[in-house]
Amino acid sequence: MAIDRRATFGSFGVVADAADDGDNIIHCPTLRNELAARPSPFIAHDYFGGGFVSDRDRVCLQSIKFAGERSAGSRSQDNLQARWCQLVLREARTRVSEDTLPPQGYLHLPDYAMRSGPREIIYHNPSDTHIAICTVGGICPGLNDVVRALVHKALDYGVPESNVMGIRYGFRGFTDRQHRPVQLTRRMVEEIHLEGGTVLGTSRALPVVSEIVKRLDLWKIDILFIVGGRGGNAAAEAITRECDSKHVPCCVVAVPKSIDNDLLLIDKTFGFETAVEEAQKAILAAKVEASSAYQGIGIVKLMGRQSGFITVSAALASGIVDAVLIPEVKFTLDGEKGLFAYLERIMQEKGHCVLCVAEGAGQDMITDQAPKTDLAGRPELMDVGLWLKRQFKARFKNADIKYIEPTCMIRSIPTTAGDRVYCKMLAHGAVHGAFAGFTGITVGLVNTHYCYLPIPLIIQAPRRVEARGELWNRLRSSIGQPNFE
Amino acid sequence: MAIDRRATFGSFGVVADAADDGDNIIHCPTLRNELAARPSPFIAHDYFGGGFVSDRDRVCLQSIKFAGERSAGSRSQDNLQARWCQLVLREARTRVSEDTLPPQGYLHLPDYAMRSGPREIIYHNPSDTHIAICTVGGICPGLNDVVRALVHKALDYGVPESNVMGIRYGFRGFTDRQHRPVQLTRRMVEEIHLEGGTVLGTSRALPVVSEIVKRLDLWKIDILFIVGGRGGNAAAEAITRECDSKHVPCCVVAVPKSIDNDLLLIDKTFGFETAVEEAQKAILAAKVEASSAYQGIGIVKLMGRQSGFITVSAALASGIVDAVLIPEVKFTLDGEKGLFAYLERIMQEKGHCVLCVAEGAGQDMITDQAPKTDLAGRPELMDVGLWLKRQFKARFKNADIKYIEPTCMIRSIPTTAGDRVYCKMLAHGAVHGAFAGFTGITVGLVNTHYCYLPIPLIIQAPRRVEARGELWNRLRSSIGQPNFE
Amino acid sequence: MAIDRRATFGSFGVVADAADDGDNIIHCPTLRNELAARPSPFIAHDYFGGGFVSDRDRVCLQSIKFAGERSAGSRSQDNLQARWCQLVLREARTRVSEDTLPPQGYLHLPDYAMRSGPREIIYHNPSDTHIAICTVGGICPGLNDVVRALVHKALDYGVPESNVMGIRYGFRGFTDRQHRPVQLTRRMVEEIHLEGGTVLGTSRALPVVSEIVKRLDLWKIDILFIVGGRGGNAAAEAITRECDSKHVPCCVVAVPKSIDNDLLLIDKTFGFETAVEEAQKAILAAKVEASSAYQGIGIVKLMGRQSGFITVSAALASGIVDAVLIPEVKFTLDGEKGLFAYLERIMQEKGHCVLCVAEGAGQDMITDQAPKTDLAGRPELMDVGLWLKRQFKARFKNADIKYIEPTCMIRSIPTTAGDRVYCKMLAHGAVHGAFAGFTGITVGLVNTHYCYLPIPLIIQAPRRVEARGELWNRLRSSIGQPNFE
Amino acid sequence: MAIDRRATFGSFGVVADAADDGDNIIHCPTLRNELAARPSPFIAHDYFGGGFVSDRDRVCLQSIKFAGERSAGSRSQDNLQARWCQLVLREARTRVSEDTLPPQGYLHLPDYAMRSGPREIIYHNPSDTHIAICTVGGICPGLNDVVRALVHKALDYGVPESNVMGIRYGFRGFTDRQHRPVQLTRRMVEEIHLEGGTVLGTSRALPVVSEIVKRLDLWKIDILFIVGGRGGNAAAEAITRECDSKHVPCCVVAVPKSIDNDLLLIDKTFGFETAVEEAQKAILAAKVEASSAYQGIGIVKLMGRQSGFITVSAALASGIVDAVLIPEVKFTLDGEKGLFAYLERIMQEKGHCVLCVAEGAGQDMITDQAPKTDLAGRPELMDVGLWLKRQFKARFKNADIKYIEPTCMIRSIPTTAGDRVYCKMLAHGAVHGAFAGFTGITVGLVNTHYCYLPIPLIIQAPRRVEARGELWNRLRSSIGQPNFE
Repeated sequence: MAIDRRATFGSFGVVADAADDGDNIIHCPTLRNELAARPSPFIAHDYFGGGFVSDRDRVCLQSIKFAGERSAGSRSQDNLQARWCQLVLREARTRVSEDTLPPQGYLHLPDYAMRSGPREIIYHNPSDTHIAICTVGGICPGLNDVVRALVHKALDYGVPESNVMGIRYGFRGFTDRQHRPVQLTRRMVEEIHLEGGTVLGTSRALPVVSEIVKRLDLWKIDILFIVGGRGGNAAAEAITRECDSKHVPCCVVAVPKSIDNDLLLIDKTFGFETAVEEAQKAILAAKVEASSAYQGIGIVKLMGRQSGFITVSAALASGIVDAVLIPEVKFTLDGEKGLFAYLERIMQEKGHCVLCVAEGAGQDMITDQAPKTDLAGRPELMDVGLWLKRQFKARFKNADIKYIEPTCMIRSIPTTAGDRVYCKMLAHGAVHGAFAGFTGITVGLVNTHYCYLPIPLIIQAPRRVEARGELWNRLRSSIGQPNFE
Repeated sequence: MAIDRRATFGSFGVVADAADDGDNIIHCPTLRNELAARPSPFIAHDYFGGGFVSDRDRVCLQSIKFAGERSAGSRSQDNLQARWCQLVLREARTRVSEDTLPPQGYLHLPDYAMRSGPREIIYHNPSDTHIAICTVGGICPGLNDVVRALVHKALDYGVPESNVMGIRYGFRGFTDRQHRPVQLTRRMVEEIHLEGGTVLGTSRALPVVSEIVKRLDLWKIDILFIVGGRGGNAAAEAITRECDSKHVPCCVVAVPKSIDNDLLLIDKTFGFETAVEEAQKAILAAKVEASSAYQGIGIVKLMGRQSGFITVSAALASGIVDAVLIPEVKFTLDGEKGLFAYLERIMQEKGHCVLCVAEGAGQDMITDQAPKTDLAGRPELMDVGLWLKRQFKARFKNADIKYIEPTCMIRSIPTTAGDRVYCKMLAHGAVHGAFAGFTGITVGLVNTHYCYLPIPLIIQAPRRVEARGELWNRLRSSIGQPNFE
Repeated sequence: MAIDRRATFGSFGVVADAADDGDNIIHCPTLRNELAARPSPFIAHDYFGGGFVSDRDRVCLQSIKFAGERSAGSRSQDNLQARWCQLVLREARTRVSEDTLPPQGYLHLPDYAMRSGPREIIYHNPSDTHIAICTVGGICPGLNDVVRALVHKALDYGVPESNVMGIRYGFRGFTDRQHRPVQLTRRMVEEIHLEGGTVLGTSRALPVVSEIVKRLDLWKIDILFIVGGRGGNAAAEAITRECDSKHVPCCVVAVPKSIDNDLLLIDKTFGFETAVEEAQKAILAAKVEASSAYQGIGIVKLMGRQSGFITVSAALASGIVDAVLIPEVKFTLDGEKGLFAYLERIMQEKGHCVLCVAEGAGQDMITDQAPKTDLAGRPELMDVGLWLKRQFKARFKNADIKYIEPTCMIRSIPTTAGDRVYCKMLAHGAVHGAFAGFTGITVGLVNTHYCYLPIPLIIQAPRRVEARGELWNRLRSSIGQPNFE
Repeated sequence: MAIDRRATFGSFGVVADAADDGDNIIHCPTLRNELAARPSPFIAHDYFGGGFVSDRDRVCLQSIKFAGERSAGSRSQDNLQARWCQLVLREARTRVSEDTLPPQGYLHLPDYAMRSGPREIIYHNPSDTHIAICTVGGICPGLNDVVRALVHKALDYGVPESNVMGIRYGFRGFTDRQHRPVQLTRRMVEEIHLEGGTVLGTSRALPVVSEIVKRLDLWKIDILFIVGGRGGNAAAEAITRECDSKHVPCCVVAVPKSIDNDLLLIDKTFGFETAVEEAQKAILAAKVEASSAYQGIGIVKLMGRQSGFITVSAALASGIVDAVLIPEVKFTLDGEKGLFAYLERIMQEKGHCVLCVAEGAGQDMITDQAPKTDLAGRPELMDVGLWLKRQFKARFKNADIKYIEPTCMIRSIPTTAGDRVYCKMLAHGAVHGAFAGFTGITVGLVNTHYCYLPIPLIIQAPRRVEARGELWNRLRSSIGQPNFE
């Protein structure tokens, strides 16, 4: 068996080639050589009148051109381009095997990606296709929406209900005999999008790739959908490779999940919009608490291990935050330009202040906590919220400090309408991609269009708020915050 | 000057006398002897066609009769009656002066209280009346509703806008020169009920009663409204007495506030309904987290220093809680009948569980935390939530434990419609009571009717969930929880 | 067979007798003579430690005493007492048979009712009891909560899951062969309280009493729960009587439902709190529309065929309504004291205004609509909202009129926490009452306590907002509205 | 005076020229020739570290390339390109003067637009700049957000608070002596984003362009912001031209508003996301009503005079709609392929159905309503909702039909977090654009980047859901609906 890496570059099954009209496009790997082509069942369908998507339809990966280096935000883009070659994905390295990582000096960002959507020719026989769906990592608004839409679209293709199975509790469900896969029917998923969480259950259990591929083979799974973050995508890539080397003809398609919105290239991750909406409520609560109290200080800790997107966006949306701390931007507490001096001025003006901090901020400054590890032995973040609370108590002796940590309440809610549509479109795209014979791909919205991306492309590094980029500038010019350094 | 304590009992300005028809009724103290009577301005008003309330209208304090001691809930009521004589209000004792407390062996629960509402004869000249409004203690949904309705009704009586002042940051605002009272106009309060918190600001600063009364005298305040909890009511009582002894003819009327709903006699406190509504959302979040995780345990810590009302009501409402811990009911963690053994069984059945705990529960069991005191030097509660989280981690080694503490998010939200109406009615009653010349009273809903109660009556002890009473039984029979002992 | 009407008065199975201690109490009819007594299964249960409720526990039906006729609200109460004898329940008369109606000159309002709750002796053998649940009439928030709690409590008693059935689409489901009853399991009802509407379906189909009783007999139903309004309660009473005359030993227990809150004696109906909460949102929308427009007028039509409770409560809660029209209070549009002249003044002051109208208001003034009848041939209300809109357009020629009718959006939402608890308690009370052998009863909260009431007592007339009573006065004094007459 | 139309094409102040690197870019007209250049105040600002945007930064107007005509959605795009030359903007023609319209055979869609953002060189002296803000047309979530952010950013530039004025009630406020402009201070706008509607008021009054320009001159307005839809943008263009011809050096910048999301080129309009979120609630209500009733049919009428975006998006998000009708797609009721036959099949399967209809759908089919005109004499839409309701009643005789029209409740709510950020960014971009000396421009998000567009470009025609395009196909393949023709 062989994944079709024609025109691939190095060992990645990914290529930036020049299409007929001179465009530089990233192709996605396929299993088409191993599978039999057949016409899409939608050709005959009355209700799908809009035609199909061509493999040569393509979506711009960049929709902006900068006049030069001095243009706002351009440096962050330049950085992106430059760092593309240099980044080492430490995290993925730890989680999966070394060789799923991009080689050093790897690739240029190509101009175009392949468009997502239904193909006229498909490569699985729907009535005989077995499908498995797995949600991995932390919960995030939209998991049930994605699961529901995967099931619906698979059934629309003609896959029998008895052939669609849900893996329980993330990768654990491949091997845990107490939690066997469950069959997923149209009826079972009918209203799950109205609930938060995931009906399949999830976990952060590390994937034992060889065992998983054995089960895929044993259970005759033709298509595996993995809804997960960078770790989950890296696992999907590793499973793709293991399938390839063990001649298990299973198409692996990821739906990228990250409540932190820290995935490269993709306009936004699903659940992010919902999370910002809910996070804002916590900020408003902090504002009410702080402004009602004598010398009130409200501190809100939000999600964001490596990236401050939720924190920045929620602060920007609320319009009432005085200072924001994120992992990407260093800060000092003391000194004339420090956070404390700044907030003291705010307190004098307004009588109170509100601070938002992303959970991954200031990790290097926390010296009074013992390092912890999670169930899987990975290092856990120090608690910057509690640390800040203590620092504030020491500095603002008479202040009434309220500390809010709404993470669980944010992660567990059902999706907003926007995320609901987005999840559905991603899932449909994933199903179309799998039936089109692609493997080792992930689905994403890029410059407002849905497209397919080879997994390695998006997991090379976490996407971050650029300290000199547009988003951070917007926030700063909006709330008037200096850099505390 | 003399508060009218005709027919009072002891030094309390409170009496349970026998009305003309043999009913045993609690009268409220008045300053009528010191003030000039005049007709209510509403007599002429076209728009107030419903007549006035008489001082002899009365409201039952008990609307149930038990067949005997064996009837469910009767013992808790009997206890109430019995304990009426014995309770020592430790807290009030600390907060105010010793002599505001009820003497031992004080009184029987009378049958009736006076009805709240507009009187035909009033004792302040509206055009010449000065009013001060003060919110004290922690924030609670509805404070702004109450402030708004106090202002509106005072203006309806004909008090000039220039005569209505708001005291800033609780009792602190009487003496803090940096935060002088603010004038409250109709326009200023127009939309404050749509926001949480209190526009006046609040604090837990202890009242310096003599200083406060000096300011009342200096500023010529005729009516002082204090929106506060048991502490605030005790302070109101102390201020009433100090006014009496210093011959400052100011009517002091409290609006009882307790998000915990722990006030004696009153059907429910304002903000409680709102708090339960919001608390439930945190419980649902915990459920989603727990059920989505492998061996998920959701722990929600809710408000309730001495009383479990919010915790029990929110758990009852949610319909998805497995166990509830409150201050009123002892529990053990270990042993066959302990919480852990119980939850292990639940985990085996369902794969996950959800626990709600009131912040005041299990205080005597927490041995690993140093006692803390708040800004005012009062002892603070130990953190039962974090303690439980640690205990659970030690016991359920593979469990995925999510801990949610939504207190600030609950306290700071705007009111539900029910609370909105309730706040308005309480505030209107308070204004009517003050114009009727009453002092040292508080306003409350008792058996669905609004009435006036002498302050000492409701602050003798916190109201509690009776361990053998109806509410706790309802919860237990609803969720099937044993007592963990 | 005979319903136990010992000590009943006339043909009603209802009596106001003098209990041992001289109290005047309304007893409820029972089938105990026909059934075998046995101990409650909860006696042994560890988890129900609070004891049982006695048949002699009683709840006050009146918790206020007026000084005299001049006291605000007293006349409305007097009216209540007086009208108790005179009212003819036209509606129930039409819906069911003549003889379910109270005889003229019927009864005095007694002092006490029986308390709801678990009895120590029960009269059905749980393991052999068959139960049917039926929701009738329009939808209302809380129907699913009630159904869920009925099922849960029945299962708690020990009724097998296979013995609990749900009747589809109201009374229609007794005879419609296409919609047979469904079995209700714990799993099926697990999350239904999180959704609006009713999982059983409902309809306004008239009950064919004889056919229903035949099915109760055929299907060996021991307990029938009917969740319905005055019509549904009247039907429950008729079914009770038909069971009696046909010797079908089925206990019929109603759970009273009325989103309009128009049931006599009961503190509030379930779903009402939720409806007011949601109605308020429509009012706020109208305010935003009106105040953003040039000469904006917002009109909101709310529920309330005969009673203005929702309209008055939502208007009171919102704090931003300028005028309210309800069925109970006549109004004129024109003339110096008319609605138009009043709103013109408001428009001049503020530039806009907001009006709330209950659907049943002003029916006698609408002359430009043809009378309509519903599916069952009953007269439908004229559309007062559209009529008002036209009248306003004719009068306020340049105004920008926005008309909002949120009824469906209000009726269909899930319950607030308060209603959620309330529904649960009502349903538990209903199950306890049925097992205690009562029949022809309904469950309600009276003066903050749950009690059982013979059905005829509450269906004699719709409860109404008294034009000279407290609620209407509160509204008027709160918004400053005159009577438009 | 002369607007700088160097390199403009025809009379539009718009040009698609070839930038240095061969890109085809649309320039925006400026008043720079008339104004004095000076450095941006942000150059010195510590807190704006991200640099400036260059006039030569550019944003792609197309971020997708189709393989060919057969690719799904390509024809709609081709249409767009083709129709670009042919469309006649009837509406704008009626509203403003003939010559603001694009000439026939006008332009090709260029490749790039200018990027929005702060320029290093500005053309107004902030301390001496007078600004007017005007909201026109119907209300839409986000108006207050936009007004607030315009004020904030203008003050950030250094404009004195006394120089920022709000025009009342749309264009009417320029000439209505009873509603003079109001000064807008930081304090006044502080919390307006938490409320729906517009604090300035709005109206659909037609602009009298010459009178408006007289006032701009008289009041010495340097910058005019108009927040409005296609009509408002057309008016902004006409005012720009009148300013030009009358030598009034005022920069006119529009912020495009359309709750229907029917503006060309722009990713989405502000308020749309919020509207879809809220619309979905109405759909869920319809689902609950329909599924709880016997043969229930829920009909929801949503906004969308010419475009079905809200209807399609809300239906797609809800996941529970059976059929959707929009203005862009013809339908028939009767016949084998008609709506009725389709819904009959759905009713047989499920027992109920839900239909969403955009207000502009089926206008040519409604023959039983007299045409109406609005206050300004423009034709109003027929009420397709009531018409459908009647048609359904005639066809489905026993069905229980619920009709919901939530428009006012949708338009009046505050913004979601996403819209809140979006409004802020648009408004900031508008202020930057005005200070950069641009005039006759509008601000928009295009392919995820903010850019400036000459007004004529976006008002040529309403954007529509393409009957053969992606969105409609997504909906149809998601809900399985055929075309009813």
